Amino acid sequence: MPNAPGTKTRSGIVTLLTDFGTSDHFVGVMKGVIAKIAPDVQVVDITHEIGPQRVKEARWVLGQSRRWFPIGTVHLAVVDPGVGSERRAIAVEAEGHFFVGPDNGLLSDLVGAGKAKVREITNRAWMMNQVSATFHGRDVFAPAAARLASGAGFASAGRLVTNATWLGKGEPVRTGKRFWTGEVVHVDRFGNLITNLTPEAVPDLGVRPAVFRAGFREMAGLSATYAAGQPGEVIALIGSHGGVELAVNGGNAEKALGLGLGAPVDVEIL
Amino acid sequence: MPNAPGTKTRSGIVTLLTDFGTSDHFVGVMKGVIAKIAPDVQVVDITHEIGPQRVKEARWVLGQSRRWFPIGTVHLAVVDPGVGSERRAIAVEAEGHFFVGPDNGLLSDLVGAGKAKVREITNRAWMMNQVSATFHGRDVFAPAAARLASGAGFASAGRLVTNATWLGKGEPVRTGKRFWTGEVVHVDRFGNLITNLTPEAVPDLGVRPAVFRAGFREMAGLSATYAAGQPGEVIALIGSHGGVELAVNGGNAEKALGLGLGAPVDVEIL
Amino acid sequence: MPNAPGTKTRSGIVTLLTDFGTSDHFVGVMKGVIAKIAPDVQVVDITHEIGPQRVKEARWVLGQSRRWFPIGTVHLAVVDPGVGSERRAIAVEAEGHFFVGPDNGLLSDLVGAGKAKVREITNRAWMMNQVSATFHGRDVFAPAAARLASGAGFASAGRLVTNATWLGKGEPVRTGKRFWTGEVVHVDRFGNLITNLTPEAVPDLGVRPAVFRAGFREMAGLSATYAAGQPGEVIALIGSHGGVELAVNGGNAEKALGLGLGAPVDVEIL
Repeated sequence: MPNAPGTKTRSGIVTLLTDFGTSDHFVGVMKGVIAKIAPDVQVVDITHEIGPQRVKEARWVLGQSRRWFPIGTVHLAVVDPGVGSERRAIAVEAEGHFFVGPDNGLLSDLVGAGKAKVREITNRAWMMNQVSATFHGRDVFAPAAARLASGAGFASAGRLVTNATWLGKGEPVRTGKRFWTGEVVHVDRFGNLITNLTPEAVPDLGVRPAVFRAGFREMAGLSATYAAGQPGEVIALIGSHGGVELAVNGGNAEKALGLGLGAPVDVEIL
Repeated sequence: MPNAPGTKTRSGIVTLLTDFGTSDHFVGVMKGVIAKIAPDVQVVDITHEIGPQRVKEARWVLGQSRRWFPIGTVHLAVVDPGVGSERRAIAVEAEGHFFVGPDNGLLSDLVGAGKAKVREITNRAWMMNQVSATFHGRDVFAPAAARLASGAGFASAGRLVTNATWLGKGEPVRTGKRFWTGEVVHVDRFGNLITNLTPEAVPDLGVRPAVFRAGFREMAGLSATYAAGQPGEVIALIGSHGGVELAVNGGNAEKALGLGLGAPVDVEIL
Repeated sequence: MPNAPGTKTRSGIVTLLTDFGTSDHFVGVMKGVIAKIAPDVQVVDITHEIGPQRVKEARWVLGQSRRWFPIGTVHLAVVDPGVGSERRAIAVEAEGHFFVGPDNGLLSDLVGAGKAKVREITNRAWMMNQVSATFHGRDVFAPAAARLASGAGFASAGRLVTNATWLGKGEPVRTGKRFWTGEVVHVDRFGNLITNLTPEAVPDLGVRPAVFRAGFREMAGLSATYAAGQPGEVIALIGSHGGVELAVNGGNAEKALGLGLGAPVDVEIL
C-alpha cells in the first residue's frame, strides 16, 4: 500500500462490521465506494449480522476482532440508529489502528483507550458529493475509511474532539465480597452464551474454584473443552475470547437455559 | 490490471449478484473459476440472497449498485430460471461498464440504455470445456466475466444482437391527474419497503405535499429521517436509493403493513 | 505470490470452508490472522454454513469445490467437533493442492488420494503463540494455511503420518444385480436433493433407462434440465456436480419429498 509521507503506515486492509445483513446491496455498494477511492485496499468482512441497531453487541464484536489484524488496519463499523440525526461521525486512532463510525458508543473501547485521538469527520472532500439522510455507511463512513486506508493523514478528517460518546468499560459488577454479576455479551452460532466475566475483571477467576449461576441452573467449575461434560449438560469454560462462556456438549446453551443477549450471569469465587 | 491493446480500460473488479445463497459452494466455485482465468481480478459480492429466481428483484438491486463501482467494472448477474433451456447468454457494454448474464430481462436497464452494445456469448473459448445443463454461472458466465475483466475484447464474446429481452422501464403508472401507482421493488433487512416512486418518475414528488397509501394505511408527507415519526408509526421518506420507502421508527414496515415485494403503493400529489 | 525456493508453486489463494456461520466474528478473525502472516494472499469463502459439526457434509462440499481452483491453492477446512481434544491437526498435499484441517475424516478424499502426503501439524512456529482450547481455526489452522500459501515448505508442518482418518469412499452400495442404494449428500438452497449416485459409481447410469425411488415417490428416467417435468413434479437429473439430484420444476424437492441429508435414494437400472 502507498503510505503518504508523514502518516502512519497502513496495512492496506479495511474491515467491515455492520448490521446491514448481506441480503441487501448495502455492503456491496460500500465496497464499490472503497474500490473507487482506494483500488488497492483489501476489504475483510467481520460480520454484517449484528442485530439491527445493537450498538453494544457491535462494540463487543469489534473488541474481539480488531487485535487479530495487522497494525495500520482501518476498522469501519456502522451500527447507526441515529443516522440522519445530529450524531457525529468520528474517526479514532488508537493502539496503532484506525476506526471509523458513528459517535454513539460503538467505538467506546477505542475512545477510552490510552493515547487515543478522536476526530469528528467533517472534511467534505472525504465524503460523497451528495450525502443522503439514511446511508452514511456509503456516503460518509466508507469514503473516510478508504481515504485513511490509502494513506491520507488522520488530521485531515476534521477537528479533534474530547467528548466522544463512551458507554463505560462494560465490565461485570461486584455484588459481594466473592460475587460478581456479569452478562451475556454475545450468543454465537452454536448457541454458546459468551459473557463479560474475564480473569482480568474477576480476580482469581480460573485460579480458584468457582460456581456460575444463570437462569435456573448452577454450573460448578470451569471445563477444559466443549467436549467435557455429559451430553446435554450445561458447562462453563474459558472460551477463545478469553472470558467465560456457557455451552452444552453437543447441544445449544441458549436453548437449554432460555437466555439471550444481556441476561445476567453470576459467579461466586469459592 | 492488464488492459489488452485496443480495449477499454478495465477496473479489475468483477461484482457478483445471484440467487445462489451462500450456504452452498456455488459462489465459491465461481470465484475459483474467475481466479484461474484472471488471477489479479478482485471479486466483490453484491448479494447472493435474491429470492430464488426473482429476476425483477435482481434487476432492481443491480440498478442500485452498479454505479457505485469504478468505470470498467464487470457486473456478473445470474438469476436464471431458464438455465439449460434455449435462453441466450449475453454480455452488455453500457455506461462504461460491462454486464454478463442470462437474456431474461435481468439486464433490461442496460439493454435499454443509450449506446448500449449487446452481444450473445457464443465464443466457446470463453466457456468451460464442458458446459453443464444446470450451472451456467460456473460454466458460461463466470469465465466470460473473467475474460472481460482481464481485458479481452468485448467483440470476442459473440455477435451483436438487437432483440435482447427488455422488461420495460419498471416505472410507476399514472392513474389520475395527480395520482401514481408504484410498487414495492425491494424489502430490506430492516423491513423497510422500498418503492419505485422516485422524483424522476413522479413530477413534484418531494417538492409539493403528498399523501401515500399502502395496505390500509395512509402516510402524509415525507419525513426527513428514520428517526422521525412516533415509535411504531409508519412514515414515508426518500431513501438512500433516491426513491420513496416506507419505514417504521424503531420497527418493521413490512410487518406493520403486512405488505411485501410487488405490493402497490399509491401517491397523490396535493 | 512469492514462492520459496524448492517449494511447489502456490496460487496465492486460500479457500475457507467451515461451520462457523457468518453472524459471528470467527471467519473475519481467521482472515485477519492470514493477512498478518501472508498479506498478499487472497482468501475465498466456499461456505461457512455447513451444518454445525457435519463433517461428512463438509467433505462433500470440499470435493465439489476444490478442483475449480488453480493448482497450488491451499484449502482450509474447519468442521471440528473434537477441538481441544486429542484429535490431530493435519496438512495434506494431494492433486497439486494443499489442505489444512482437523484429522477427523473431513479430508478423507485427499488422505485417500494417490500420492497424497499427510503431515501432522506440530511446528509451534506455525501456530499462534497462545493456542486456545476452543478455536484452533484461528490459532492453528489459519496460521498454517497462511504459511503454506506464502510458500513455506510443506515438510516444515511436522512429521509424515500414514494413519490419518479415512471415512471410506462415500459411494453408493450395490443392493442387487441392477440395484444401488445411494444417499442424499447435500441439500442446496433451492431444496434440490443431491445424491452420491454418479455414473462413475453406478455402471450404465445415464446410459440405460433407470427408475429412482426416494421417500414414497418413484421417478422414471433422467430429465435434461430443471425446467423439464410438470410444475410440482419431482424429477431426477444429472446435476452440475456430475451426479443424480432430485428436483421439482419451480418447486422444492426437499419439501415435496420430506427428505433431508442422509436419506436413502435407490436406483434400478432397467
